[in-house]
Amino acid sequence: MKVDADDFFFSGLNKPGNTNNKVGSNVTTVNVNKIGGLNTLGISLVRIDYAPYGQNPPHTHPRATEILTVIEGTLHVGFVTSNTQNRLIFKVLNAGDVFVFPVGLIHFQFNPGHENAVAIAALSSQNPGVITIANAVFGSNPKIDDGILAKAFQVDKKVIDDLQSQFWMDNNN
Amino acid sequence: MKVDADDFFFSGLNKPGNTNNKVGSNVTTVNVNKIGGLNTLGISLVRIDYAPYGQNPPHTHPRATEILTVIEGTLHVGFVTSNTQNRLIFKVLNAGDVFVFPVGLIHFQFNPGHENAVAIAALSSQNPGVITIANAVFGSNPKIDDGILAKAFQVDKKVIDDLQSQFWMDNNN
Amino acid sequence: MKVDADDFFFSGLNKPGNTNNKVGSNVTTVNVNKIGGLNTLGISLVRIDYAPYGQNPPHTHPRATEILTVIEGTLHVGFVTSNTQNRLIFKVLNAGDVFVFPVGLIHFQFNPGHENAVAIAALSSQNPGVITIANAVFGSNPKIDDGILAKAFQVDKKVIDDLQSQFWMDNNN
Amino acid sequence: MKVDADDFFFSGLNKPGNTNNKVGSNVTTVNVNKIGGLNTLGISLVRIDYAPYGQNPPHTHPRATEILTVIEGTLHVGFVTSNTQNRLIFKVLNAGDVFVFPVGLIHFQFNPGHENAVAIAALSSQNPGVITIANAVFGSNPKIDDGILAKAFQVDKKVIDDLQSQFWMDNNN
Amino acid sequence: MKVDADDFFFSGLNKPGNTNNKVGSNVTTVNVNKIGGLNTLGISLVRIDYAPYGQNPPHTHPRATEILTVIEGTLHVGFVTSNTQNRLIFKVLNAGDVFVFPVGLIHFQFNPGHENAVAIAALSSQNPGVITIANAVFGSNPKIDDGILAKAFQVDKKVIDDLQSQFWMDNNN
Amino acid sequence: MKVDADDFFFSGLNKPGNTNNKVGSNVTTVNVNKIGGLNTLGISLVRIDYAPYGQNPPHTHPRATEILTVIEGTLHVGFVTSNTQNRLIFKVLNAGDVFVFPVGLIHFQFNPGHENAVAIAALSSQNPGVITIANAVFGSNPKIDDGILAKAFQVDKKVIDDLQSQFWMDNNN
Repeated sequence: MKVDADDFFFSGLNKPGNTNNKVGSNVTTVNVNKIGGLNTLGISLVRIDYAPYGQNPPHTHPRATEILTVIEGTLHVGFVTSNTQNRLIFKVLNAGDVFVFPVGLIHFQFNPGHENAVAIAALSSQNPGVITIANAVFGSNPKIDDGILAKAFQVDKKVIDDLQSQFWMDNNN
Repeated sequence: MKVDADDFFFSGLNKPGNTNNKVGSNVTTVNVNKIGGLNTLGISLVRIDYAPYGQNPPHTHPRATEILTVIEGTLHVGFVTSNTQNRLIFKVLNAGDVFVFPVGLIHFQFNPGHENAVAIAALSSQNPGVITIANAVFGSNPKIDDGILAKAFQVDKKVIDDLQSQFWMDNNN
Repeated sequence: MKVDADDFFFSGLNKPGNTNNKVGSNVTTVNVNKIGGLNTLGISLVRIDYAPYGQNPPHTHPRATEILTVIEGTLHVGFVTSNTQNRLIFKVLNAGDVFVFPVGLIHFQFNPGHENAVAIAALSSQNPGVITIANAVFGSNPKIDDGILAKAFQVDKKVIDDLQSQFWMDNNN
Repeated sequence: MKVDADDFFFSGLNKPGNTNNKVGSNVTTVNVNKIGGLNTLGISLVRIDYAPYGQNPPHTHPRATEILTVIEGTLHVGFVTSNTQNRLIFKVLNAGDVFVFPVGLIHFQFNPGHENAVAIAALSSQNPGVITIANAVFGSNPKIDDGILAKAFQVDKKVIDDLQSQFWMDNNN
Repeated sequence: MKVDADDFFFSGLNKPGNTNNKVGSNVTTVNVNKIGGLNTLGISLVRIDYAPYGQNPPHTHPRATEILTVIEGTLHVGFVTSNTQNRLIFKVLNAGDVFVFPVGLIHFQFNPGHENAVAIAALSSQNPGVITIANAVFGSNPKIDDGILAKAFQVDKKVIDDLQSQFWMDNNN
Repeated sequence: MKVDADDFFFSGLNKPGNTNNKVGSNVTTVNVNKIGGLNTLGISLVRIDYAPYGQNPPHTHPRATEILTVIEGTLHVGFVTSNTQNRLIFKVLNAGDVFVFPVGLIHFQFNPGHENAVAIAALSSQNPGVITIANAVFGSNPKIDDGILAKAFQVDKKVIDDLQSQFWMDNNN
């Protein structure tokens, strides 16, 4: 195999992602599936677009730390430390601010303003993975037993069933 | 520093943990904080007790894969793959069965029977960390903004507020 | 390749291994050869059965640290530190006790009682390997030159020849 | 030590660096020295400003792969593969383009246009290091023997002496 | 701390080690304890001298692979693969020959000739450790129970007691 | 695949390399391409021959630290620390001296005497790579734009063109 420049190249990170969805955000991923030359090199990049009041909902990366910088707009960002403290580490970011989300911790970004926001973030894996908490817990296929989730979240099964119906439709449309 | 046998030793993993709590389970952890000799060695052990209908609720380990074996009783276990498939990988386990939960993925165990269940599990880190999803998302200190969570979970703020009140009390009692 | 639950599953660790052999012990291994889903995840599990007065003879794992817990019975366990101290780190373990054997060090377990003993142990590799010292040194195929071993162990060649005859038969029956 | 949000935060990556220097570029580094929370996490971020016709001259990162995206302007970028091929892997990048420079390889960026250019790049180490080839070879303190360099670059000592005088002054002013 | 050249330097590997001992060999080690600058760099070096008919007796490195080259003389070298095959991988080496001993496996070198032999070897750890099998098994302090060893090696306790007396004196003189 | 001794063996490191070339040195490499059994083991070996006044010109290993020992002769060796200090760490080595070149840093060896010199060095990778600075910068294929290099090295394009002509011929003959 003879590599050339295109094996190390990706185009289009200047284009806003489509944020016309329920959470009002979009992630454009540049990982090893997009740039083959990243194989074994342990890093990747993303662009995140946020509509006004949009968010990148609570999620984790099972195999990577993330370092993010705001290109335009304002973001409320945070991550929650592990048990048993579960401290929320929170910050308001403006353009040029940088923030770190340590590997595996639940984190989110929210655009509090009436303008779009844009961030560029890097992840310490060629294939970091993303687990959106709400989708994984309530939108899995097949569903997690509603009795288990009712006890875990200490709510009525009815609340769980509603959540699962909602996310099931989201994941299958 | 001259090490001796007690630097590699812990006692008490035969004792049932107290499952008299809301989720009906208890995790006894043997990590580097309990056995100093584990430092740099990349492994640790836990015992998990499950009351009848108890569960180890959906959680992740940010820095470890887990391999679990059932010592007594029956467990329903599962993990959910990352986006965008969010497949539930599910299995019913009985005594002597072994199951793997890959690093960073959300997983759970549930005791469906009317007898206690007990498992021993190993984790591929001397300090794997635990993030119980419900506690981290709804019980963080300080709270995550309820508007953000309402949109993330696509429910009324009222539902979020109830969840946060519930877990706030749990985490602070 | 579409994975399913069986790629993360193994059954039978509740069954006593057959200890009707010269050392009076048996190791049931659950590594990547038994659970394909362990690939790249750096952990595995074993069950060890000990007949009365049986032992898991001095051995090393070339690629893993081991953390062991006693499920039933009593064990005398130890490891020897590297040159030039060669200290024996020794402990008597009962049910619920946990002990760590650091990567690559020679260690053993011995059942001093007249009842069976059982342990579960985890190893920090998906494929840790086992080198039983007596078998590797005296039972290799082909044999190590008896003059070399006589000098290494500072005994007559006759002693080495007897040992090699013994282990050769063991390894080939 | 109780961490807080400022341990994961840095401000100012929106501010253009001062490119009024001989190479016409400036690198603003956000590594573990700027964000203590990056410790052990294996990633960092930089902003690079390029004046018209400015360049980030040939350099290596001894401990990191780099992934770069152009925020504004145009860049000529390249890296050279190791011996014995020494292939130049070259690409013209515009806003939104992404390029990878594998760990340890010599690479550069050049702004061919009459407008400023700006890039954000991530590196797969909390402390990647930078070795600017010309400075390290000709501007070291103390100097490398000029006879050695004359033979290595196959030029007269006079050429080396001029280069060393030049870079010595640069490094000491 | 300001490092200088002596932090990366060691002197004396040209001097023959004293092989006037029971095994007829000597290892001069250049690891992180001798060169502080090796810290975190994962490599070290040794010189091994062999008297005529001397040997570097069966041993393992718990944290390193070894690559050896013969500088002068002839060596018989081998390593034994792990259970259950226990294959002896054996080779006769002369000056300029190179051989690899994979991490954690038991290996040895023997000088079959009537001249001295010398080797230089590198190890993939700044602190690889050495476990000489005979010393660790029979010369540990305190001693391993002779009943355990008698069963492990399938010989009379008397043989073990003799071995232990022998190595005990060696280790304590 | 059944491995045998030849998978861990290489012959010929006692033979002087041909130093009849412009830099007056020769490197004989024993990496994973020569010994397949080195795969995944993270180490390799080289022999370096130096004619009188010959040198191993300034170069880096993108994926390895090097530890070198002088077998015969005298060497002037050095490496340059990364920006912004660019300190030259320099030492005169004689037979039996050992020196370390940390991963990714530019380093060189020079034979100041009128006799041959020989060194054996180990590298902390099975495939460390070599980047000879002059060849990579001035001899790449295709060439790096001479205007870029003129500015990087702060010399006239004419000097760069001469260097490129020189190294181009070297790399293509």
